[in-house]
Parts: sequence; C-alpha cells; structure tokens
Amino acid sequence: MIITARLTFSAAHRLHNPNRDEAWNRKTYGKCDNPGGHGHNYGLEVSVRGTIDPDTGMVIDLKELKDVMRERVIDRVDHRNLNEDVDFLRGMVPTAENLARAFWQQLAPAIPHGQLYEVHLQETERNSVSYRGEDE
Amino acid sequence: MIITARLTFSAAHRLHNPNRDEAWNRKTYGKCDNPGGHGHNYGLEVSVRGTIDPDTGMVIDLKELKDVMRERVIDRVDHRNLNEDVDFLRGMVPTAENLARAFWQQLAPAIPHGQLYEVHLQETERNSVSYRGEDE
Amino acid sequence: MIITARLTFSAAHRLHNPNRDEAWNRKTYGKCDNPGGHGHNYGLEVSVRGTIDPDTGMVIDLKELKDVMRERVIDRVDHRNLNEDVDFLRGMVPTAENLARAFWQQLAPAIPHGQLYEVHLQETERNSVSYRGEDE
Amino acid sequence: MIITARLTFSAAHRLHNPNRDEAWNRKTYGKCDNPGGHGHNYGLEVSVRGTIDPDTGMVIDLKELKDVMRERVIDRVDHRNLNEDVDFLRGMVPTAENLARAFWQQLAPAIPHGQLYEVHLQETERNSVSYRGEDE
Amino acid sequence: MIITARLTFSAAHRLHNPNRDEAWNRKTYGKCDNPGGHGHNYGLEVSVRGTIDPDTGMVIDLKELKDVMRERVIDRVDHRNLNEDVDFLRGMVPTAENLARAFWQQLAPAIPHGQLYEVHLQETERNSVSYRGEDE
Amino acid sequence: MIITARLTFSAAHRLHNPNRDEAWNRKTYGKCDNPGGHGHNYGLEVSVRGTIDPDTGMVIDLKELKDVMRERVIDRVDHRNLNEDVDFLRGMVPTAENLARAFWQQLAPAIPHGQLYEVHLQETERNSVSYRGEDE
Repeated sequence: MIITARLTFSAAHRLHNPNRDEAWNRKTYGKCDNPGGHGHNYGLEVSVRGTIDPDTGMVIDLKELKDVMRERVIDRVDHRNLNEDVDFLRGMVPTAENLARAFWQQLAPAIPHGQLYEVHLQETERNSVSYRGEDE
Repeated sequence: MIITARLTFSAAHRLHNPNRDEAWNRKTYGKCDNPGGHGHNYGLEVSVRGTIDPDTGMVIDLKELKDVMRERVIDRVDHRNLNEDVDFLRGMVPTAENLARAFWQQLAPAIPHGQLYEVHLQETERNSVSYRGEDE
Repeated sequence: MIITARLTFSAAHRLHNPNRDEAWNRKTYGKCDNPGGHGHNYGLEVSVRGTIDPDTGMVIDLKELKDVMRERVIDRVDHRNLNEDVDFLRGMVPTAENLARAFWQQLAPAIPHGQLYEVHLQETERNSVSYRGEDE
Repeated sequence: MIITARLTFSAAHRLHNPNRDEAWNRKTYGKCDNPGGHGHNYGLEVSVRGTIDPDTGMVIDLKELKDVMRERVIDRVDHRNLNEDVDFLRGMVPTAENLARAFWQQLAPAIPHGQLYEVHLQETERNSVSYRGEDE
Repeated sequence: MIITARLTFSAAHRLHNPNRDEAWNRKTYGKCDNPGGHGHNYGLEVSVRGTIDPDTGMVIDLKELKDVMRERVIDRVDHRNLNEDVDFLRGMVPTAENLARAFWQQLAPAIPHGQLYEVHLQETERNSVSYRGEDE
Repeated sequence: MIITARLTFSAAHRLHNPNRDEAWNRKTYGKCDNPGGHGHNYGLEVSVRGTIDPDTGMVIDLKELKDVMRERVIDRVDHRNLNEDVDFLRGMVPTAENLARAFWQQLAPAIPHGQLYEVHLQETERNSVSYRGEDE
C-alpha cells in the first residue's frame, strides 16, 4: 500500500554551474540560465509504503507526514531563491532532479526506515521527476 | 501494458474506531472524527495489466471495465455514507487505505485472474493511496 | 480589477427539506436525499473588486482575504456536517446555491463595502454556482 | 461571443517597493518580500470579444492572437526576473494586479479597437486576477 | 445566482469552408484544414441564471439540466464527426464559436425563457469560447 | 531517477478492424466505430530513467527530449487522422494501447539504449494507458 501527500511551494531558481564558463552554461541550460533567474510553482508529492495498521486503518498519519514535509522541506524553500537561500541546497545546481534527491535526503531520516517510497516533483505542467532513492 | 479507467463518486464518512475510546479517536483522527461526519469527491482509478489482443488492439474493453467498476463499487458508494450504508465496508474504519483494499477485493473476482494491477483512490487534491494487492 | 482567492474544504451534507414529506424529498433530491448523507470536496473562490493601490500594487491583501475566508467560512464548515454542525446554516437545505449565498452573507461584513464581487462554489467537477449578491 | 487563449510562462519576482522602508515592505508583502525573490508558473488567459465572421466562423484567428501574446508578453517575461529584466515592467512592483494591467497595455494596441475583453492571470492554484481595462 | 453544469464529449472535425478555394482554406485554417480531420475532447459548461426557489434551495434541478444537455447536444455530437454526422450543424464550419452558438440554439427552447445564461465550450487546454446569446 | 515530459496533440480516429465484419466491429468498439470517426485531445507523457549527471544536475536535457517527441511523434500525429494520415500507424487499429506501443517504437531509437522508461497516453479524463516496452 502506498500513500501520497501533495503540497506546493513557489520559488525562484537559476540553472547555472559556477564551475563552468558562460558558454557551457548557456549551451547546457539555455534560457534557464538567465542571470536574474526565473521561478516555478512546484508540486511536491511524497509517497510512503507500508501495511495498514489494523487499529487505525492507516499506513501513516497523513497529518504527521505533511508536518514532516513542511518542517523539513516546504518551510525552507517556499518563497525562497533556491540558489541562494536554502542551506541544504548550497553548491548544487537546483535542477528538478537535484531538488528531488535533496528533498529525499531531508525527508528520509524523519520517516520510519524503509518506508519512504518516492519523491515526485512537478516543476511545470510539462516537466516532472520521480526519485526513489536509487543511487544513494 | 497497463490500462486505467477513472470514475468519481461523492460520499460521506467519519474516521472513528468504535472499539477505542473517544480520547484515542480524537488523538488519532483529529477533525476527521467529527461525529456528524464529513465527505469527499473521490476519484477512483482502476488499472489492469495485460497484453494487447492483436484482433481488437485492446488489453481489455474499457467499457466493460467501467461497467464492473460501476456495478461493484461506484453504484454502492456514490452518494452514500461509507460508515453506515455500504455492506462490504461494515465494521471497517473508512480510511482511504481501507477503502482502496476493499474496492480491490470487490473488483478482483470480476477481472480475469492476475490482470487487476492497481486501485488508486484520490481523496482530496492533497491525499491519495495506491493498492496493488500486496498483503492479501 | 478583480482578484480571486481559492480555498478548499471537505464536508458532508444531505439534501432534505424537513418541512416536506419523503415522497417530495425523494422526487426533488433523488440520491442526494440519502438519510446517511454524502459529501464533497468543495472549492471556494472569493472575488473582490477594486482599484490598484499605487503604493502596494494590490487591490486587497490576499493573505488578509484568505484569513477572512478561513475565519468566517472554512474553519466552520471544513470536516463538518453542513446539516447539523454549522450555526449559520441552520434551517437551510445545504444546496450549493444556499451555501454560496450564506457564505456571501458571512463574508460581506468583513470586506470593505461594495468590494465583495463574487462567491463561486465548486461542488464537483461537474457542478458549480456563482453568487454576486443579486437578490439580497 | 468571447474567445479565450491560454499560454503559460515561468518567472521570478520579488514584491518590494523601493520607495518605502524595510519595515513597511515586510509588513505589506511578508514572505513575498524575500530579497532573493521567489517565482511562479503563471497562466495567462487573454479574452477577445466580437461577432462571428460568417465566412470563417471565427471571432478572431486564435493562432494570430497567440502570436501577439507571445511577441508582446510571453517571450519578454518567460524565464525572466520580473523586477529586473523586463523593460515594460520597470519601476513597478510586480504584483499580479500590476502585471495584468501592464500585459493589457502591451496587448491592446495589437488587437482591433474595443475587442480586447479581459486579461486573466493565474499566479498559483489559489490566486488569480482579472483585468478588463476599467481604470485606464 | 448562476448555476453551471459541465459535461464532456469527444468528436472529430475539420475546419473547411466548401464555398472557398483550397488556398483560402489553407491560409485561414492552417493545419485545422487537414482533409482527414482531427478531433478534441470538448468540455461543455452550460450556465443558467435565476433565483433560489425557497422550497428546494435550488435555481434549477441540475439533473434535469444535464438531461437536457445530453438529449439535445451531447448524445448527438459525442463520438461523431461534426462536419458530417450532426443534423443541426449541417452547412456550418464547426469552429468552437459556431458550435457554441449552435449548442445555445439547441438548448434555449428547453430552458425556461431568459434563464439560459452562457454556453462555455473548452476545445483544448488552450482554447475556449463563451456565448451568451448576444447576436441572436 | 525518472524524468517525464508532457506534450499534447489533437487527432481524429475511428476504432475499426477492416479484417472483421461490421457486426464484430460494432460489438467490439460500439460508438467508437462511427464511420465518420471521432477525436481526442491526447496527453503524451514520456519518461526516461537514468542517473544524474553531476556536472549538469540533469538526467537528460528535457528540451532535447521534447524535440525528439515533437519530431518523431507529435508533429506527425497532431491535427491528423490516425487511421489515414500517419505512415507508422498504417494497418493498425488506433486504440490507445496500439498508439502507446507505436509511439514507444518511434521514440526508442532516438533515446540512449535502455533509458526510455514509459510512454503514458491520456486519451480522455477517464482513459489512459502506460507502456514500458514489456512485450517487444
């Protein structure tokens, strides 16, 4: 049984690798490398896998899961600049892929071992990523 | 190949375990334990897995799948109180998790053996569960 | 200029006029008259009309508008039974039409005179109502 | 007859009035005043009003309307910082209200006189504005 | 008070005026003039305006409104070719504008005089039209 | 890590197997066998699986993935008749299942070996299929 909670946040970012030159960045990221940045309304879905507790009828208390999501991710990235303002994203190009993996790493320690199943991050109506801890 | 049909229904429910006391229920279910109940527009997605019939180009006739969904689930829960009105939910706390598993059990006998792949139940824009028959 | 805020709530209701007999109720409301009730995820959109304040660039502070919506409507109807639990809905059949007008009446005193423009209530993917104070 | 085209763009912005002090800005804009900015996926709907051309069956060629929207608005704001990068937004706090009015002013000269009916700007799932040229 | 019902249908169409030559059609309709046609999932929203009946709490019985929509429009256009199969669309280029007006004309006689308020037709995520009987 | 791009197209089709008689076709496909065809707005989601490139922070360049989708699928099926106009669909009943597999076969050669993970095709709000290359 997999249970999923969805929350949203709005943030600015710029896709830019400071270790590479301007030409490489422009070629790699195109308009996403705009120096003033751009931004998105992100949809964050976190899925937990487990068995149904026969007493509560629940796999996990969704209210507690959302509290974890808010405390460890949403409250630290909402209405922020993902390149500058977020400690756990320092030194990272804030692509959807890197964000999803970084969010997983923030969430995993607060969720019973082995239960975190997937972090799904919707960047626009047309782009999304799913991370299941594959290459940690 | 997986093929998915989506139907919706509207129902009332109350999260309350009558075998536990009020304090436990209030702590466990919070506002979802409101005695008068509350309700949702549920989205029910049923997925079937199979190979494409070369004659029809279909894995399953979606019209037949929806007829099964209507007869075995939708028509019995739509515009109902899930705590009181539905025979196959008796004695069960109607959490999204328990509903998804109960719907699977209603649907499975009417679908060719091994083809039912997933029951996905959307409770709100922010909560959903997926059940694949794992712990039957 | 019209500015709109959207919030959601989940509630149970039963369409039933206690002043009329069962036959009338069944004929008028059909399955919506189910004695145990049913429920919905409602989407509530409140629109305010005004001019842009040249200093703030805003018609109204959306955070304040949402606080009014939560205090006067959402917190009193969310996870409630609209027939039984809500003081300002007493004695009223909780149709979408009656709800929209009742919400307008709760909201209007807290919004500068003449600025409340529309209460839009989405009951399902297929049903909605809009009220602009026409027949008060 | 009203016909509406919808396009989207992603941009960063900060709500901040440089003519007022920090305390005023923080009180007025809250977390939207974050110095590093934040961002959104905006949905822009432009509506044109007219009669149906009996020859074409169209009020306006939607492809041409979208070309105007792209040339005059979308291509200048997409993947941009609305405080810094857009000439026609200079000196303006980029609230949804100010954006909608500024977009109207960009679009109106390219649409037959009197036909532009509404600019609707969706900032998040919860916030939107509509402008119909009222106070020009 | 305005109440709105939404139904969907899927149909094929080709934008082509047989009274004009190929060059005109290609220039006017572009890829929508493809001889084999193309198609859409249409969303049809019909809005009725009226006062709340104090007995029922309703402006109109939505079930009856949907029955009218199905009988007079949906059942005649769903899974049809709008250029060839629909009697009330004969001799008309099936643009969204012409469809909305034709649907209004089908619906109006079945709705109490003066109550039909708007026919809104969504052709794609990006295109829609609204008709309020303006130029009848 | 899985990354997904979504594009849309609008097309006409008819479900009809010319090797079977009318009775079989009518029984199998029902109203989808309408001789004049019908149509849909399709949503096409293509998912690619891979590891994050530490230099770019990306699994794949989404712009390149969308270019492949446009060149190999979207531009050949958008505003087309799927029974008549598309070379790679010749001789095939254009069910959602057959389309998803055919799109996979068009896309796979243009994506690094083993990385194409899923083709998801949404036909209506109620019908979708997912193909992961299972029975090639």
